[in-house]
Amino acid sequence: MPKISKKGLEMPSSPIRKLVPYADAAKQRGIHVYHLNIGQPDIETPEGARNAVRNADIKVIEYSHSAGILSYRKKLAEYYKSVGIDITENDIIVTNGGSEAILFAFNSCMDPGDEVIVPEPFYANYNGFSQSCGVKVKPIYSSIDNGFALPPIEEFEKIITPRTKAIMICNPNNPTGYLYSKEELITLSKIVEKHDIFLFADEVYREFCYDGAPHFSVMQLANIEQNVVLLDSVSKRYSACGVRVGALITKNKEVYATAMKFAQARLSPPTYGQILAEAAVDTPKIYFDKVINDYVARRNTVVHAINEMPGCFCPMPKGAFYVVARLPIDDSDRFCQWLLEDFDLNGKTVMLAPATGFYSTKGEGKNEVRISYCLNVEDLREAMKCLAEALKVYPGKTI
Amino acid sequence: MPKISKKGLEMPSSPIRKLVPYADAAKQRGIHVYHLNIGQPDIETPEGARNAVRNADIKVIEYSHSAGILSYRKKLAEYYKSVGIDITENDIIVTNGGSEAILFAFNSCMDPGDEVIVPEPFYANYNGFSQSCGVKVKPIYSSIDNGFALPPIEEFEKIITPRTKAIMICNPNNPTGYLYSKEELITLSKIVEKHDIFLFADEVYREFCYDGAPHFSVMQLANIEQNVVLLDSVSKRYSACGVRVGALITKNKEVYATAMKFAQARLSPPTYGQILAEAAVDTPKIYFDKVINDYVARRNTVVHAINEMPGCFCPMPKGAFYVVARLPIDDSDRFCQWLLEDFDLNGKTVMLAPATGFYSTKGEGKNEVRISYCLNVEDLREAMKCLAEALKVYPGKTI
Repeated sequence: MPKISKKGLEMPSSPIRKLVPYADAAKQRGIHVYHLNIGQPDIETPEGARNAVRNADIKVIEYSHSAGILSYRKKLAEYYKSVGIDITENDIIVTNGGSEAILFAFNSCMDPGDEVIVPEPFYANYNGFSQSCGVKVKPIYSSIDNGFALPPIEEFEKIITPRTKAIMICNPNNPTGYLYSKEELITLSKIVEKHDIFLFADEVYREFCYDGAPHFSVMQLANIEQNVVLLDSVSKRYSACGVRVGALITKNKEVYATAMKFAQARLSPPTYGQILAEAAVDTPKIYFDKVINDYVARRNTVVHAINEMPGCFCPMPKGAFYVVARLPIDDSDRFCQWLLEDFDLNGKTVMLAPATGFYSTKGEGKNEVRISYCLNVEDLREAMKCLAEALKVYPGKTI
Repeated sequence: MPKISKKGLEMPSSPIRKLVPYADAAKQRGIHVYHLNIGQPDIETPEGARNAVRNADIKVIEYSHSAGILSYRKKLAEYYKSVGIDITENDIIVTNGGSEAILFAFNSCMDPGDEVIVPEPFYANYNGFSQSCGVKVKPIYSSIDNGFALPPIEEFEKIITPRTKAIMICNPNNPTGYLYSKEELITLSKIVEKHDIFLFADEVYREFCYDGAPHFSVMQLANIEQNVVLLDSVSKRYSACGVRVGALITKNKEVYATAMKFAQARLSPPTYGQILAEAAVDTPKIYFDKVINDYVARRNTVVHAINEMPGCFCPMPKGAFYVVARLPIDDSDRFCQWLLEDFDLNGKTVMLAPATGFYSTKGEGKNEVRISYCLNVEDLREAMKCLAEALKVYPGKTI
C-alpha cells in the first residue's frame, strides 16, 4: 500500500471536531448536548438573500469569473464603502469561503519555511492552512488576564526573523472575542511597516462588535496599504456559512495578480452562493440590530454566569460570539471529553472546545475552554447550570 | 513593498485565459468571436436539479458536514453503483469542484519534491495544482499520430524515480478527448502495482463517451484498490460548472482520513451546490441521450471540417468535448492571438486554446490547438469556415 505524505501525516486534526464521536455517543444514550463548541450561528439567513437564490432564473449554471461575478464584486465594494473601507471591485477576489482566501494569501505571499506571526490563542484552522502551505506559525502569547489584548510591540520584535513574512490577526477575534482598538492596530502597522512584511487580517466577525465599540479595519491603516491583505467571508455576517463565499481583498496589485493565478487554477467560486451574497448586501439594518442585541444578551449570560462560578474567570469581550474562559481544571481536553462521557445534569450536558487546540505553544490552554454563544439565552442559562454543576464534581478539579 | 512568494511568482498563468484580453478587444471592434477555447457547455442544467435549489426551504444556510451532506453522499454512491463503481458514502469526500479534489489528493499523497507522471498533453491546471503543492509533474509524451493513446509501458518505466509517488490520468481526456480502453487501464494498473504508487484518475467526462465505447473506471481495477484515488465533479456531467461540487473517492482509508483533515480545515463544500447535485442524480436517461447525440454531431462537424483543411490533422476521439488538432502553423500561441487581433471573416473569428499550454515539455504543441466543441453545430460550421480561411492567410503558415 503506498504511503500518504508526511505533509498529510502531520496535518493537524480539527480540535473542535475530535470530540464529535463522544457527543454522538452521549446523544445515543439520550443525553441532550448543548453545543457551545462550534461557531454555527442559529440566526436565520436574511430572507431577501435566500429569496434571491429561489428566484434566480438561470438555465445553465456556468462557471463565474475566477475573481467572482462582476455585479457581486461591485455590490461588495459598496458594502465595504459603507463600513469605511475604500476599495473597488478590482481589489476583490471572491473565494470558496474565508478558508480559501487564507490559502490564497499564504500561497501568494509565503514560501515553505517562511514564518507568520499569530497572536495566540488563534483560530485553530490557521494551523491546518499553514501546514498545507508548508508555512510556520510563530505564536505570540496574549494573556487572558488582560482580556487577550495585543501583546506589546517588543514581543513581536523578539520573534521576527529573516523568514518572517507576515503577521496575521483575527479581529474581532476567534476564539477570544477580543476587538482590537484603532490604537493597537496603528501600533501593529508600525511593526509591519518597519519590517516591510505582510499583514493578513481575518475580519469575518466585523459586524459583531458590542457595547458601542467601533470596528477599525486594517484597510483603514493609511501607511501600509501595500502590505495589507484582508480576508473576509459572508458566513458569519449573514449567517450563511454553507454558501461558501469569502473574499481576498488587497490594494497590492502584485499580490492580487498572484492570488488570481491560484484563483484561475480552481476556476470559480460558487454561483448560488454569490447570488445570495450579492442580495445579502441589501439586508436592512434592523436585521443586524436584532442580531447584535441577541448576541449581547447571550454574551452577558455566559460571561456573568462563568464569573459567578468558583475559581473561574472570563473576560467580557467586545466582539465575535466566542469567549475563552479559565476554569479550575487539570486538563481541558480531558474535561471536555468527561463532560460528554461521564457527566449529565438531569439528562443534559455541554460540549465545549478545549482551548489547547487554539494555542500553538504546547501546554497552553490546559485550564481554558472556548465557549461559542450561538444558542438562545434560555438554552445558554441551562448550559451554564450544567457547567457549574460539572465543575463541582469533575474528578480533575483544581479547587 | 513586501515581496510575493517564489511559489506565487512561478505559479503558471492559465493558458486558456491569457488570450481573453485580445478576445475582449476583438468584441469591442464589433467582431463576433466563436468561443472554442473553453469547456463551458451550453447545455441546460437539468431542470429537476435546478428546481431542487428553488424549492429548498432552509432558514439557516449552515455549514454542511466536511465530507458533504450525508444524504447527498448516499445518493452519489447510488449513482456510482449505476455506472459499475461499487463504493459507499464513506468512501466519498464532497469537494469545492473537482479542483479541490485534486488539491486534496496531491496534498494527502505527495510531499514537496515528489513526482507525479502525467501523459501529456494534459489539463493545464494540473500544473497550477502541482505548483501549489510543491509537487513536480513529469510528463510522458502521447502522440497525436495514434490519437493520444496511452504511451507504452516502457516509457513509464523510464521516468519512474524514487520520488515518483503517483501517475495521473484524465479519462476521457481533456484536452485530447481520448478514451482509455479497459486494456490500457489494466496495463497501467500493472505499473502502479509493481511500483506501489498512487493512481489519480480525473473522470469528470465519464458520461461523454461516444460511438458506443464503454467507460471503464479506475475504480473497477481489482488489483490496485488501495492505490486508486478517483477525482470527480458534477460540473460537466450535469452542465453545472458553477455549483462547485466535486468529489474525492477512495477505498484507501488512510488517504481518506488524511484528505478529511484538509477537508475539515476548510469546513465544508457549498450547500446549494450539493442540493442541486443530489437532485441531479435522478436526471432521466433521455437528458443524457440528447446531450450525447448533440456532442457526437458537434464532434463530427469539427473533426471532419479540420481534416478537410490542407495540412491539418485531427484524430476522432471517443470522449469528452475537446479535440487537439495539428495545423500547418509556426506557433500556436502566435496564431491564436493573431486570430483575435488581425483576422476576421465577414466580422467573425474563432478563439482557440494554443496546445502549448497543455504540454509540460517546452516546445511541444506549437503546431497544435485545442478545440472545445461546446457550441451548436451551426455555429461550429461557421467557426470552421473562419478557421479554414484563416489558415489560408495566416502569415506564419507552414504550407
